[in-house]
Formats: sequence, C-alpha cells, structure tokens
Amino acid sequence: MLRPNAPHQPLMIVGSIGLDTIDTPFGTAEEVLGGAACYSSVAASLFSQVRMVGVIGDDFPEEHLAVFRTRNIDLAGIQRCAGPTFRWSGYYEYDMNQAHTLATHLNVMADFSPTIPESYHQTPYVFLANIDPDLQLSVLEQVRKPEFVMADTMNFWIEGKRDRVLEVISRVDAVTMNDAEARQLCNTASLVVAGRQLLGMGPRLVIIKKGEHGALMFTRNDYFVAPSFPLEEVKDPTGAGDTFAGGVLGYLAFSDDSSDANIRRAIVYGSVLASYTVEDFSLRRLIDLEAGEVMLRYAEMQRMTLFTA
Amino acid sequence: MLRPNAPHQPLMIVGSIGLDTIDTPFGTAEEVLGGAACYSSVAASLFSQVRMVGVIGDDFPEEHLAVFRTRNIDLAGIQRCAGPTFRWSGYYEYDMNQAHTLATHLNVMADFSPTIPESYHQTPYVFLANIDPDLQLSVLEQVRKPEFVMADTMNFWIEGKRDRVLEVISRVDAVTMNDAEARQLCNTASLVVAGRQLLGMGPRLVIIKKGEHGALMFTRNDYFVAPSFPLEEVKDPTGAGDTFAGGVLGYLAFSDDSSDANIRRAIVYGSVLASYTVEDFSLRRLIDLEAGEVMLRYAEMQRMTLFTA
Repeated sequence: MLRPNAPHQPLMIVGSIGLDTIDTPFGTAEEVLGGAACYSSVAASLFSQVRMVGVIGDDFPEEHLAVFRTRNIDLAGIQRCAGPTFRWSGYYEYDMNQAHTLATHLNVMADFSPTIPESYHQTPYVFLANIDPDLQLSVLEQVRKPEFVMADTMNFWIEGKRDRVLEVISRVDAVTMNDAEARQLCNTASLVVAGRQLLGMGPRLVIIKKGEHGALMFTRNDYFVAPSFPLEEVKDPTGAGDTFAGGVLGYLAFSDDSSDANIRRAIVYGSVLASYTVEDFSLRRLIDLEAGEVMLRYAEMQRMTLFTA
Repeated sequence: MLRPNAPHQPLMIVGSIGLDTIDTPFGTAEEVLGGAACYSSVAASLFSQVRMVGVIGDDFPEEHLAVFRTRNIDLAGIQRCAGPTFRWSGYYEYDMNQAHTLATHLNVMADFSPTIPESYHQTPYVFLANIDPDLQLSVLEQVRKPEFVMADTMNFWIEGKRDRVLEVISRVDAVTMNDAEARQLCNTASLVVAGRQLLGMGPRLVIIKKGEHGALMFTRNDYFVAPSFPLEEVKDPTGAGDTFAGGVLGYLAFSDDSSDANIRRAIVYGSVLASYTVEDFSLRRLIDLEAGEVMLRYAEMQRMTLFTA
C-alpha cells in the first residue's frame, strides 16, 4: 500500500474467525465480524498479500467473505464446516483495558484442525494468532521453513497448556502477548525481566503489548518503546491486539526486512492501525481505512515521541 | 550540572519532609529520609539552585540536613518545630505500582503554615509539591509573581478539598498528578480527555505521571509521550513521582526555558532521575548520582524511542 514497488512477500495468518456480541459504555454490537484472524488479516492486508487459515460454520455471512476478497485476501485456507461459527460475547466496563467474557461457544472451532493448502506451503511470513498451541504446532509441521514466524497466545493457554505454549515459543522467530500474560508466563512483575526471559526461550523478537500504554520490543541488541496513539474516545477495544500484530507482520512481510530498525517501524504501524480499530465496533473502521490516514498518524507518532539532546 | 554556563534560575520547592518506614518485596527500610520536598529538592539540585520550604521536628537527624547542604540547597525556609517529624509507613506488594499506607502521622506537619523567607520572595521557578492545597495557596500569596509555578496533588486532597485543588490548578502554570488522580479529578477513564480538561482549567502545561508506563505531556499545541526507563529490578518506588517532578522543574529552572521542546527534555530528565531513585530505598541512589549517569540514560531514552519514516 504505502510503497507499491518495495519487496512484497506474502503472509499467512492462522487464527479464529468468529461472530462477536459486544457491550461497551459506548454502545452495543451483535453478531459482528470478529476473531483474531479477521482483525490481523485485514490489518496486514493494508501492507501485504494475506493468506488466511481458519474455520467458519455454515451460518457465516457471505458478506464478510466478500470484504476479505476486496482486500485481496486469499481464502483457500478457510474451511467451511457444518454447524455454527465460533461465537464470543463479552463486555467492557469503564476501564476498557479489561474484557469480561460472557460466553465462548467454540462451535465449529472445537474440532478444527488446520489444513494448510499446497498453495500456501512456501509462504515466507507466518502469523500464528492466538489459538490452541497444538494447532499452532500443527501448522508449523505443515509448512516449509518460513523466513519469519510470529506467535501470539493468551492466559487461557498459558494456564491450561503451558508446556505446549513454551514449545511454540521455542520454535518461532517472534512472540507477542499482552503485559499480564507475559507476567503470568514468566512469573515476574517486571516486564523487562519477562521480555529478556522470553528472548532466552528462543525467539529473536519479543513484543509485549500494553494496551493504552503502547508496546515494548525486545531483541538481542535492541529495546524499543512505542506509545499508543492518544484517543479521546475508545468505542470498542476488541481486536486491538490482533490488529496491532497483523499490522506488524504485514509491514515486515511487505518490506521483507526484519532488522531491528524496521521492526520499530512495523510496531508503530501496528499501533496506528490498532488506534483506528478501537474507534468503532468490529472491523468497521479498519475496513475503510485509507493509506493517507495511516501515514498521518505515523507522522504524529513520530512528533509525539521526539526529543532532542 | 550539565551545562554550567547556561541560564540558571533558582527554584523554590514547598512540600513534606518526613521519615519513612517502607516494606517492599526487596527489603525494608526504617525511619529513612522521605517526603515529597526531599525527593524533589535533591533531584532538582542536580540542575539548579534549590530553595526548600518545609517543617521538621526536633528529632529530625542533622545528617539529612547535611546532605541537603552538600547539594547547595538553601534551607532558610525550613522551620524546626517542637515535636516529632512527619512520618509515613507503608508497603508494596508484588505489583509495585501501588503503595499501601499503614500509618500517616502528621506530627509537626499538622499545624504547619509555610512562611516564605524574604530571601526566597523573588524566586522565578516554584514547585508546590503534594501538600494541603490551602498551604499551596498560602505560598502563592506570599511570593512575588514567579515566572513558572508547577503544582502536584493527590487523591486525598481531590476527595477532601476538591474546590481548593481546583483553585490551585487555576492559578499555576503547570500541574502534575498521576494517572489515577487525573482520572478521578476529571471523572473520565481517558487520560487524553483528562489532560485536555486540566488544560482548560488554566495551566498551560499538564503532566500526567503513569509510573512504569512513563508520562504524558499536554500543552496548548503539543502532546508528548515519554516512556519510563526500563529497569529489571525496582527496589522501592517511593518518591519516584516527586523525583520526576523535581527533575522536570530543576531542568526548566536551569535552562530558564519553558518552551514545548524544552519541556520535553525536562520530562525525559525527570524520568531518568526517577529511574535511579527506585533502584534503592529512600534517597540513597539519588544522593550519589553523577552527571555522567544522568547523561547516559538520557541518551538511552533517545535510542529506545527513535523510529524513522
């Protein structure tokens, strides 16, 4: 999108596709498009060609697939199964940093086993969005060694399948999770200790997401702090972290450059995309996002962090 | 300190002087030097000539006064009264962002009424550290209009003397408080809304302190986000916010420049000083801090926030 003639690698994204019902102090949305794979794929599609992997039920609205197609997202890896689509419902209170789950119905996700289409096997960039770590490992078994794999996870898997989460972490180039999850996994209050500890488990890049407080990047030789973009109103924080991760990976794939300096840029682009996602429910704001809007906030992020010697 | 030949204005600091007893997961300290005026004065003394105002009891150890004198801090505004010095005791749990108070004994602070010495009356920079807003207003009555006044406050006064806190805010150039206090005072979850709202009350500078997440600066035309310096271990967070504020004001007085660009620098210097304070109990680390250490972390703060277009 931003530099059409730059190196441009495809990116495969594996994760949940769902229908969300969400209640926030600023409104309600019922049965809207959600799921980590959706937010991250649409975000990444702003930068690179996305190959999506996931499962939908026979009730999944055709209009959502049409949206993905208009973003040039490859849907060969989407399985449609008999039964209802994955559903999540939750609410946010005054402090919107914390999602409260009302119900999770796995539905067709319960028996999902990702089958990576032959046409995806050589994808150089891979994002394993938050999903059962056994499924993340199964994806890694099916692909020819990609250039760069990032995995996300969550407290549910850290508590229930800790060993499998650690195995995923040991086999990927990058790992991302939110601050509470990093503290929980590493059993420390210090995010700096957690970041270094995660690096010690194998990945060469660790990104800790801190919601409204931005994100921290750890690599062997680098440490970077990105703020979040300041918003007066957040309507629905659902999908912010997935949008962020999709933006990061999308930008890395697009530029085909995972140097520390370029990861910094990718993180800022991820933050910018997430700042748009939370301005409305579901993917509404993200879907219509224009290149100029992304560039504008990127430049503002530079201005708001700069100080001289 | 950093540029000995730059403009160099004196700074008056009014606030509590106390003896703290502190328990953290990393140790215990009993009857150690504490209080907002002490942390902020020693921090500011790294940059500028400090004139201190406060009250001590007849049990206040002479050695602490000696420390202030070695930092060239003017003690003409310190009243020694009969009775015990102000004491605070508290503890921190695993999450060190939150102090838990065990006991507050105002002692000689209970009847404290600051009398500003004639030799302080023309001080161009003033920091009204966290203290009863009636005392902050009384100080403003006694001084000839200073160039730049910053006030701090806390939840105790916001709850108990809200109108007086608002009057202080309306009469100063700058206000600082932590994120929870800004949310409480402005009755909003959004720090961006709170920052703008505080600007609307009169000050031309608002700094919201976010502990380990850094600080936000709001002015009419500017917004700046400073991270905190990443530490693997925090021994005792007491005084971090006061150190930060003292560092900010000390640098502004030293450079005699309250432009937006210079306030950004001052905030980063404040963050750097606070990062040293929390590495040990009381003012231990701050007292021996050397110029080179400050410059080193300032440069690291630049490196960790930089990203290019």
